[in-house]
Order: sequence, then C-alpha cells, then structure tokens
Amino acid sequence: MSSTFGRLFRITTFGESHGPALGVIVDGCPPRLPLTAADIQGQLNRRRPGQGTLTTDRDEKDELEFLSGLENGLTLGSPIAMMVRNKDQRPRDYAGTRDIPRPSHADFTTMAKFGIQAGSGGGRASARETWARVAGGAIAEKWLADQYGVGIVAWVESVGTEGPAVVDVQTVTRAQVDATEIRCPDQALAARMSDLVQAARADQDSVGGVVTCVCRGLPAGWGEPVFDKMEALLAGAMLSIPATKGFEIGSGFAGTRMRGSEHNDMFVAKGQGLGTETNRSGGTQGGISNGEPVVLRVAFKPPATIGKPQETVDFSGSATTLEARGRHDPCVVPRAVPIVEAMAALVLADLALIQKTR
Amino acid sequence: MSSTFGRLFRITTFGESHGPALGVIVDGCPPRLPLTAADIQGQLNRRRPGQGTLTTDRDEKDELEFLSGLENGLTLGSPIAMMVRNKDQRPRDYAGTRDIPRPSHADFTTMAKFGIQAGSGGGRASARETWARVAGGAIAEKWLADQYGVGIVAWVESVGTEGPAVVDVQTVTRAQVDATEIRCPDQALAARMSDLVQAARADQDSVGGVVTCVCRGLPAGWGEPVFDKMEALLAGAMLSIPATKGFEIGSGFAGTRMRGSEHNDMFVAKGQGLGTETNRSGGTQGGISNGEPVVLRVAFKPPATIGKPQETVDFSGSATTLEARGRHDPCVVPRAVPIVEAMAALVLADLALIQKTR
Amino acid sequence: MSSTFGRLFRITTFGESHGPALGVIVDGCPPRLPLTAADIQGQLNRRRPGQGTLTTDRDEKDELEFLSGLENGLTLGSPIAMMVRNKDQRPRDYAGTRDIPRPSHADFTTMAKFGIQAGSGGGRASARETWARVAGGAIAEKWLADQYGVGIVAWVESVGTEGPAVVDVQTVTRAQVDATEIRCPDQALAARMSDLVQAARADQDSVGGVVTCVCRGLPAGWGEPVFDKMEALLAGAMLSIPATKGFEIGSGFAGTRMRGSEHNDMFVAKGQGLGTETNRSGGTQGGISNGEPVVLRVAFKPPATIGKPQETVDFSGSATTLEARGRHDPCVVPRAVPIVEAMAALVLADLALIQKTR
Amino acid sequence: MSSTFGRLFRITTFGESHGPALGVIVDGCPPRLPLTAADIQGQLNRRRPGQGTLTTDRDEKDELEFLSGLENGLTLGSPIAMMVRNKDQRPRDYAGTRDIPRPSHADFTTMAKFGIQAGSGGGRASARETWARVAGGAIAEKWLADQYGVGIVAWVESVGTEGPAVVDVQTVTRAQVDATEIRCPDQALAARMSDLVQAARADQDSVGGVVTCVCRGLPAGWGEPVFDKMEALLAGAMLSIPATKGFEIGSGFAGTRMRGSEHNDMFVAKGQGLGTETNRSGGTQGGISNGEPVVLRVAFKPPATIGKPQETVDFSGSATTLEARGRHDPCVVPRAVPIVEAMAALVLADLALIQKTR
Repeated sequence: MSSTFGRLFRITTFGESHGPALGVIVDGCPPRLPLTAADIQGQLNRRRPGQGTLTTDRDEKDELEFLSGLENGLTLGSPIAMMVRNKDQRPRDYAGTRDIPRPSHADFTTMAKFGIQAGSGGGRASARETWARVAGGAIAEKWLADQYGVGIVAWVESVGTEGPAVVDVQTVTRAQVDATEIRCPDQALAARMSDLVQAARADQDSVGGVVTCVCRGLPAGWGEPVFDKMEALLAGAMLSIPATKGFEIGSGFAGTRMRGSEHNDMFVAKGQGLGTETNRSGGTQGGISNGEPVVLRVAFKPPATIGKPQETVDFSGSATTLEARGRHDPCVVPRAVPIVEAMAALVLADLALIQKTR
Repeated sequence: MSSTFGRLFRITTFGESHGPALGVIVDGCPPRLPLTAADIQGQLNRRRPGQGTLTTDRDEKDELEFLSGLENGLTLGSPIAMMVRNKDQRPRDYAGTRDIPRPSHADFTTMAKFGIQAGSGGGRASARETWARVAGGAIAEKWLADQYGVGIVAWVESVGTEGPAVVDVQTVTRAQVDATEIRCPDQALAARMSDLVQAARADQDSVGGVVTCVCRGLPAGWGEPVFDKMEALLAGAMLSIPATKGFEIGSGFAGTRMRGSEHNDMFVAKGQGLGTETNRSGGTQGGISNGEPVVLRVAFKPPATIGKPQETVDFSGSATTLEARGRHDPCVVPRAVPIVEAMAALVLADLALIQKTR
Repeated sequence: MSSTFGRLFRITTFGESHGPALGVIVDGCPPRLPLTAADIQGQLNRRRPGQGTLTTDRDEKDELEFLSGLENGLTLGSPIAMMVRNKDQRPRDYAGTRDIPRPSHADFTTMAKFGIQAGSGGGRASARETWARVAGGAIAEKWLADQYGVGIVAWVESVGTEGPAVVDVQTVTRAQVDATEIRCPDQALAARMSDLVQAARADQDSVGGVVTCVCRGLPAGWGEPVFDKMEALLAGAMLSIPATKGFEIGSGFAGTRMRGSEHNDMFVAKGQGLGTETNRSGGTQGGISNGEPVVLRVAFKPPATIGKPQETVDFSGSATTLEARGRHDPCVVPRAVPIVEAMAALVLADLALIQKTR
Repeated sequence: MSSTFGRLFRITTFGESHGPALGVIVDGCPPRLPLTAADIQGQLNRRRPGQGTLTTDRDEKDELEFLSGLENGLTLGSPIAMMVRNKDQRPRDYAGTRDIPRPSHADFTTMAKFGIQAGSGGGRASARETWARVAGGAIAEKWLADQYGVGIVAWVESVGTEGPAVVDVQTVTRAQVDATEIRCPDQALAARMSDLVQAARADQDSVGGVVTCVCRGLPAGWGEPVFDKMEALLAGAMLSIPATKGFEIGSGFAGTRMRGSEHNDMFVAKGQGLGTETNRSGGTQGGISNGEPVVLRVAFKPPATIGKPQETVDFSGSATTLEARGRHDPCVVPRAVPIVEAMAALVLADLALIQKTR
C-alpha cells in the first residue's frame, strides 16, 4: 500500500534505482485532457541530475515513454502508465556498502523491515524513485491549470545558513526560479547559496535547505474538514519525499510565537467574494482552501552520502570507516523544487476531484 | 472519506460540536486486548476543557460510553464504538456568528465547501471533534504498550516566545509532564509559560505554542518505503489536528542548516543489534523506524477566537466588528498534548499491523 | 477494514447482536439533502423481525436515533451517525451454544479467526447487523431519488421450490411487493410460498429463496471499466449479506446456455439517445450502466438455525445433538428485500459520485 | 480507483488492447518469495489466444518482462511491475466500429462515461486486459502455495447446454483439466463441448459456459465478518472479469430450494480439529473460511462479437447492419480458467495477509 498515493487522482509507482526501469500509473485522471510527453518532460528535466555544476554528474536521460491511457494527444480516462529505463547503472560504485549500512540512509531499516535489499543503490529508498512522482505530478498540474487555472511555483528559500529568500508569492514565476542554477529567485542570495554548495563539495560534504512552494488560483472549498485537511495531505505528501525533515503551512513555527490578534487573517471584500487581508493561514482555514495562495515550506536535510570518511559500524557491529564512492549531490534542494511542485499538484488534483462530489 | 483515519488500525469519527453526540468507531483493533473505559478516560480527561485556571471553563464531562466491540473486558476483534453525549451546549453564544465568518476559523471555508453549516459552534471544524481522536488513540496506545512495550509521551515545548523546554527524551514521563498545569516538564519554564498565558487572557487575546512528542520502544522496521513513510503519516496525522501549522521530525528545520558530516547519525553496536550515536533522524531513516526514539514537534497557532474586537467583514462583504462571546482557551497547547499522543499512537499501531504482513 | 463499505458514499457499521447498540456512520453523503428519520424508518420497519406470521416474533423496535450530520432536516455534508439500542436481548436462549458450534453458522469460523466470540447471539455474524446497512442504504436511496430519480424495487422471486414469480421489471412497485406478507407481487405464487414457509415452520425447519431487484432511472455511464464494474460491486455487496450463496446480473446462469446471436442486446433509438431492444445485459455493458434497468438476483440459503435436532460435534470434537432454542425465521427472504435494496442503493450512490469526477 | 484490486496484496493494471503495452504492478507481495518468469508464464500461456482449434488465431506471444521488485530470483518486498508489449495489432479490423456501438459490448457505455474511447479494439473493456490479472494472480498463487500449501484449480463445467461436468473437487488437478483443449476434466463431456463450440463457429456464432473453481488447503479463519466476507470478495472479483453474469459459492442457487435440515453442514472431528460432513457452505461460514475446500462457480455469457450480421443502430440512432471482422473466440471459457484462478488467488492472498494482523 506504500506505493500508491491519492484517493481519486492517484499514482502508483514502481522501480528500484538500479533495476530495469522506473514507472508510474496515473489512475483517475479525467478523460479528454490534452496531454503530450512535452507537458511532462519539462519537469522531469528540472528534476534530472547532471543539470549543472551544483549537482551530480550522473547522466540520467530520463526520457519518458507512455505505455497507455492516451490517444491522439488526449487522455482516455483510463490509467496512464509512464516508464523510463535505467540506463546509467554503475553497480560497482556500491560494492561493499551491502555490509556497512550507510549512516542516515535506509540500508539498515530496509534490512530490518524486509530482510532483503537491492544489491546496489538505494532500491526504493533512492531519490531516483521521485522520477515517478514528478511524471505523475506533471499530469495533475496540467489538469489543474487546464480546468481551474491553478499555478504552482516552488523555489529554494534557503541553503544551509544562507537565506531566507525574499520572494513575492503573488507574482513569482518558474522563469524567475530557473534564472539561477540554485533555483532561488532572490539573485543576490542565489550567488551566496552557490558558493556555500561549492564549499561543501570541496570539503566532500553536503548541505541542506528549505523549499517554499506557492499554489495560486485555487477556488475556496478544496480540502476536507477532519483528517483530510488540505494541510494534512500536503504535509504527508511532502514528508514522503526522501530527505525531508519538516513542513510548514502559512505562518508555520513562527506563528506559534504570535498572539491571536496578530495572527488572525481579517476578511475583506475581494472581487465577487471575500478574501483575507493577511495570509498567515497559508490559504487554508479548517483544512479547506479559502481562495488565498497556499504557501508551504519543506525542510530538506543535508544529503547523507558524503565523500568524507565516516566512523561507523558494519551490520555485525564492528567498527569501520565508510568512504562513499557513488556520484551524489552535495545539495539536493534545487532538484527538489519540481518534486515539491509535483506532490503539491497531486494533492490539489485529488482534493479538486473530491470537491466535485459535494 | 474525510472522517476515516488509518489503513488497518483505523478510526471513523462523527459529531458536530453542538449536535447530539460525538463518537468514534475503532476498526481493526486485534482481538483479546484487555480494555476498560479507564484505559481511555484518563486521556480524555487530559484533553477536557475546564481542567484548571489556564483553560476554558466549559464543563464537558466527556464520559465515555462503549457501544460495541468489547465483552468481559476484552476486545472481540469487531469494531469498537464509543460515544459521548454533548451536554453543555450554549448555542446562544454563537448567535450572530452565522452572518460574520470568524477570522481564521472555518466558517467561511465550510460555507464555500458545503453551502451549509451547523447553526452554532464550529461543527466538524470544532476542536471538540478531537474527543474522538483521543478515545481511539487511547486504544491504539494500549495495544502498542501491551504488544510491544511502546511508550508515548508528549509535552509543551514552548508557549509563544517562552521556550524551548530542556527535556530528556529518553526518560521523560507523563507524570513529569502533568506536574504542571501547562504540561511542560521544565518547571522553571512552565511558570513563565503560565504567566504568558494569563497575560494573554487578561488582554482577551491568545497565544500559540509547540508540542514535542517522543515514542519509545519501537522495533526497527515500522513504516513503508515510499508514500507511507513513518514521518509522512505522522506529519499528515499531526497537521490534521485543528490549529496546527507545522511539523518536524528529528532535526527538523534546524537540520537544514547543518552539514551532512554533522547531521549523519553514526551507527554503533547497541544491545543485540545496531543503534545510532546521535538521533538527528528522529528515529526514522528512509521512512522506516530504526529503533531509536521517534521525536517529533508540532506547531500550534494562537487560537483564532479572542475576546478582542476584530475589524472584519460579514458574508456580504460589509465592514463589521466581531467580538467573540463563546468560552475559549487563550492557549490550547496543554490540552493538545493528549491529542498529539493519540494521533502518534494511531499511526504507529497502523504501521505495526502493516509490518505483520511482511 | 471489514466494517466499511463504499469509496465515496461509504458506511461504517458497528454492533454485536446482543451488545449495547448497533449503528452506522454514513460518510460522504452530499450536503443539503432533505432527510428525516421517516425517510429511513420505513425501510427499517420492512427489515424488522416480528412483522407477521411468517417471521420471528422477536420484538425489535429498531427505532432510529440520529447522532450527527443533520440540522433542520438537511444534511450538513458531515458524517451522519445513526444508532439503535439493543432492547430485547435474551442471552439465555444461547446458553450452551458456546460449546457447540452451530452447523452452517459462523461460531466455528469466528473462533478460528479471532480466538474469541461474543457470549451470546451471533455477534457481528448475526443478521441483526443488517439494521445498519438498511439505515445507511435508505439515505443513499433518498439521495439517488432526489438527484437522479432512481428507483429501486426488490421482491421475493422464489421460496424453496415455489417460483419464479412473473413480474414486470419496468413497472413493479413497492406497494405491489408489500401487498403480500411474503413480498412477492405475483399473488397466486405468494400464497403457495406462504404455505411452504408454514409447512417448514411446522417441521421446525427452514427454507431458502431468491430475491430479485430492479434499479430504474439510472443514466448511462455509472460503473468503472475494470475492477469496479457495476456488476462486480453489486455482486460483492450482495454476497456480503448474511446467508447469500449466489448472484446474477441480467441473464445470469441461464445466459450461459444461449448463443451470442440470441443473447446480444440490439441497440435501438430511444428518447434522445440509444436503448436496447432486450435487456439480457441487465443494464450494464462492460461494467458501466447503459440506461436500461439494472436487474439482479440474489440467492439466500435456508436459515441455518432450525428447531430440528441436529447430530453434530462440539468444539472438542465429541458427538452431540443440537436443538436450537432461539427465535428465528423459517424464511428470511421477505425481510431480505429491504436489505438487498439498501446494498444496491449504496453501490449506485457510490458510482454516481465517482462519475461526477470524470 | 477502478484499476486497483485488493487491500494488502494488491494489483494495479494498465493498458488498452491496441495501445503500446499492458502491465501490472503487484504491491504488497511479501519479501523473499522465490519467483521467476516461469512461475507466471505458464498461466499466461493458458490464457493466451491461439492455443488450438477452439480459440481465436490471434498470435499474442504475451511474453512477460519484469520491470522491478525482484533480484536474484527473490522478491524484494517492493512493487513488482510486469509488462507485455502489444505486438499483433490490427487496427484495421475495427475500422467502422467507432460509428456503430457493438451490441452487448462496452462501446456505447464507454462513450457515455468518458466521452472518448480508444480508436480501435475495446480499450480497457477488452479481454486483453485480463493478461495483467493473470500475471498478478500467478504471484499470489505462488505465495499461497509457498506459505500455506494452498492449491487452486478451475475447469470448464459447462459449455452452452452441455454440462455440468462430474468432477471430484477434492482431487482434480490442472493436468486433468488441461488434458482436453476445452479444459473439462470430464472427458466424455469435453468432446461434446468441443462439438458444440465448432458448431457455433460454423454458424459464425458464439456460446457461453460456466467455470468452476476449487481452492484447497486454506486454514480456517480467512475472510472478514461483515463486508469483506470471503464470498463477497470472490463474487466481486469474479464479476469484474469481462463477460461474467453470475456467481455461486457452495450450493448457490440450487441451495435456495433446499430445507435447512438438508442444507446445513454437520461438524465432524477431522485431523486435529473440526471439519464438516458435507460442504454446501462452499468452504465459508459467515464469510470466513472453515478449512473445507472453497468451491465457486462463474457464469460467462456467449461472446458478444459474432460474425453473423446483426440489425442494430449507429450512435446517431440510424438502423444499420453490423458484421464483425475481428478475430474472436466463439467460446471464451477455456481461456477463462486461468483468469478465474488468478482472481481467486488474489482474493485469498489478500485475506491471508489481513488475517496476519488479527
């Protein structure tokens, strides 16, 4: 049950990082949506490693193949299956790691859970699995744009100690985000972030960061009152992304230090209806969208794989030194941007469909 | 679908805040678990308003009635239904609020979603709904303790600007937590927190705070690799609690400012197996428990209902001043402690049952 | 997970036959549906034992109490909980049956499954559980009638060797069905059926029968193409009713003896669109409604509880003679009529909601 | 949601009959199960068209490719994806059928539902979709055999008016079933069945039939008490197979004509526990397996595609004559045998996993 996400607009994914292929089935996408590979490949390219000097140099072409669900550029209402072959496998890079569980990786817990694990790479725990999320999320995003004019933009808000970025959530665009390789629309900050990543790389170390995401154009009314609150589904979606450690909606942890009279968002007349003067709620009140931009933040830890030698123990408990040889990012947050967007899109598409049943 | 939580150990809840009754069906609880009302009433009492000077003086007895699923103090394996009548209803306190959507409440979004709302109180959006979570969670907690020796303890880490508490996650007990009315085991801090709450009350205002929760005694192996990561389910569970704005597991947002070499948890031999030297992971690696304590934090915004007059607009968009007359807490975090524990227990029981199928 | 039925329009039920109460939560019912207890009580009365000379004389008032989800006669969109207290409990009637598993009852399998069972009555395996289905189904039926003009009518087609009834599926009404106590609109046959039931009662024995159900007024397009075909969900729904042994849609088993050229339903122009000349499909083609009446049949075995002595063994395997003392129906099919209607309504309401998301 | 079947042992399928590929993701299969393509290909071959003189001569190689979930012949506990390319596509055979909905096919209902359909072939409504069920079911079957010694055997019980076969459910084997092309272990009957199929083929017509299936070796205790009764899940599974019109468990419709004293299965001491003298229950009492063989029957209508001209109307309602040109089976029941086995295996594996959580 771990491999399916969503209720009505749902994805089911498969694939180990070094197995034959990765893929995703998107079930529940409404029929007659115009859709081409190009609608998806753009986001896949943004997720891909090897995009520049800041990320790993693994060459994953990640070229999408549609297996079902489409004809003449329109969805049929049937499951849309997409796949990519794993081409650039270098299993030798992981030789030896089977005896030593990598610190803060899933090797140890995977063995505890299943009693077996893929012989090389992280198996299902690898970030390579997020290819399937981005592919599925891009379809959700297309449908949301097509039906409701919803737009989703994420960016890097901080890297390590550098940040937060100053960004206008009402107007920021993906073009502004992609203007820098680090994907931070605050350009002065972006340069400092890049320096920080390069310094970590030079030290064979890694750095974490925060991604912020805004979803604009939602009508009021999406989200369910109790367990499937919009923020609950978003939080669950985001914390299912590898390497995440935290989630905030609207005011987040900072909001806990405010008084109610400061924090409350006063209603004002807006257009044909009501809006709020401030948006500390982050676009959701009682779990249901209020028509204001949905604003969320996701914390990514520094990648666990580092070149620096690490003093740890092997599976038998004997002390050993681990030196990673795989190709890995010193900083994943730029590549996490489209993943966060994908998960947000999947949640919103699901809630939009549920709202049609009210 | 909004009213059901969990996959195998699942609760389904019902009840408006001012309707005839609230209740919960717990489905999937294994048979032959010793269970009495006393196992549950203790947590319900901790959630109840009117416990002291810091919380509202509403008198909700919240006395539990079992409707099914038990016989001679043992669970039958069938659904366990529990109910409480709503006794202390004062619908008049809400007169007038139907025309003015309360700022940062769910009145506006509920109308946008359903086109109808309960005539008084918050309906399903009321914190009263959490009674059902605590009742269901207490059964999950009993089962976890009975079968695995798992113990769950939450406490108030900060209130407004006061905090964070210094607490030993390895040893803290509920008795220590309940030693102060504010439920902070750091007693010097607790006194300052209480002062801060009283000051807010005096100003007819409210304050937020952070609840930390530790789950001890889990074996390694609970949690699923991709979408149902332990931290993902916990995040979703916590953000479904009313008034929450953020979630952290382990190092959380602070972890984003560390380097990988600092953040990684080195393995060490522990008992019969492996443990980690530090616990920045918060007890989960790759979404699966590693045997270390699970440590999470939840941000609660200041309650939206305040006595202070608020300049807002009514449903028609006309400017108006809202003065709340209901009885409400200036600070909910002490009462949130058992709710956080309940949601954590529900997630862990579910994952424990899923792990039995591997 | 056994206690929840449906995806979007879903019920979750609870209650042992001799426990404190039975109940149901209906989740997903759209808001603003006019609904009163009277809309439901009628079907509950038809399900109730003690309606006449043909059924058991247990006095179950079965009076419905709403616990949530309604206000001023309208649904709120929140879960609708309904409950009935178990009043007429006679646990002594079951004394002794705990040692001897009743033949063709669930005593043996319940113990094999759970290692425990309710001390008297059939627990969850009792037909008393169907109260909750009928209550929930009546709401589904109300919504289907209100929104789509769908009408559902079931009747007794055969009792033991008496039948099948000759009934016009296009016109049959509940009034015609209820004109006889046996609920067979073919009145000459109904008399013979009643004689057959009385003869079985005189012999302290029981008889089975078949219930046919027609659902009229559905638009084309309800039902899903692969696993959630309309007939698949209906079959699952019907075989979940206690004592059922078979299901047919349209031509059923008799259709297997026809040739394709006889069996195929030719399309003809009807109203604004297409209909079919014959209806061997039973209103569904490829799992999706085609606008013709949905016609299904459900087989009910003779009730397992009979007064006649039975030579069987106790739980330890020792030979014994069992003589039932409880009050039980010699024939359940008249009371099964509203249960079949309820399950049909739940399936259709669910599929109607799903279709809104296409 | 239509494309996923099962709760814990679940399959999600994709693929149109004439699209690029068909496939299935099996999620929830326990880790460390020995598994090779050969374990699956055998059942796929039995499902394949073109096996002999009785079935269509389409050449579908149906060669399975594993995409994930396995390493060194063992399952990893991660989703197992399998795929087959559609090689033998002849879209021209379907030219023209887009304007005329084929009688008793899903063309009309698919258009009513989705407003679009695949340009050739039956899309998701095609029997080609069952490839994915058989592939997934074969893994379930392997696991059931490996863990519990459960064996599943189905056969053709009747074809048109020929039948029923006399078969010993305790001993019948797949070798006996496959001894005749028609897959009926009653050899004298098998010959008459084949004659009947050939006669239908000569007339450009088709015939239906009944498949019986026995599942042996289950322990008592599988199946859930209320909605997820074993027979309910089996009925839903079977009626989701294309062209099915009926389902029976144990005594089925014939049981409705018996008295309780004849129908009840008396308990007797068997081995270490209890068994029943007769098996009219079909291996399930109250929805839960009792350790006796599970015996079920599935009705298949005559295939809708026939060569004979059919007087029908086109989508606009104008009268027309339809003459099918595609390659289609005059009788599908021999090929339905492995499909019925697959669906039975999927249900049992799911219930076995659920039972582990009790």
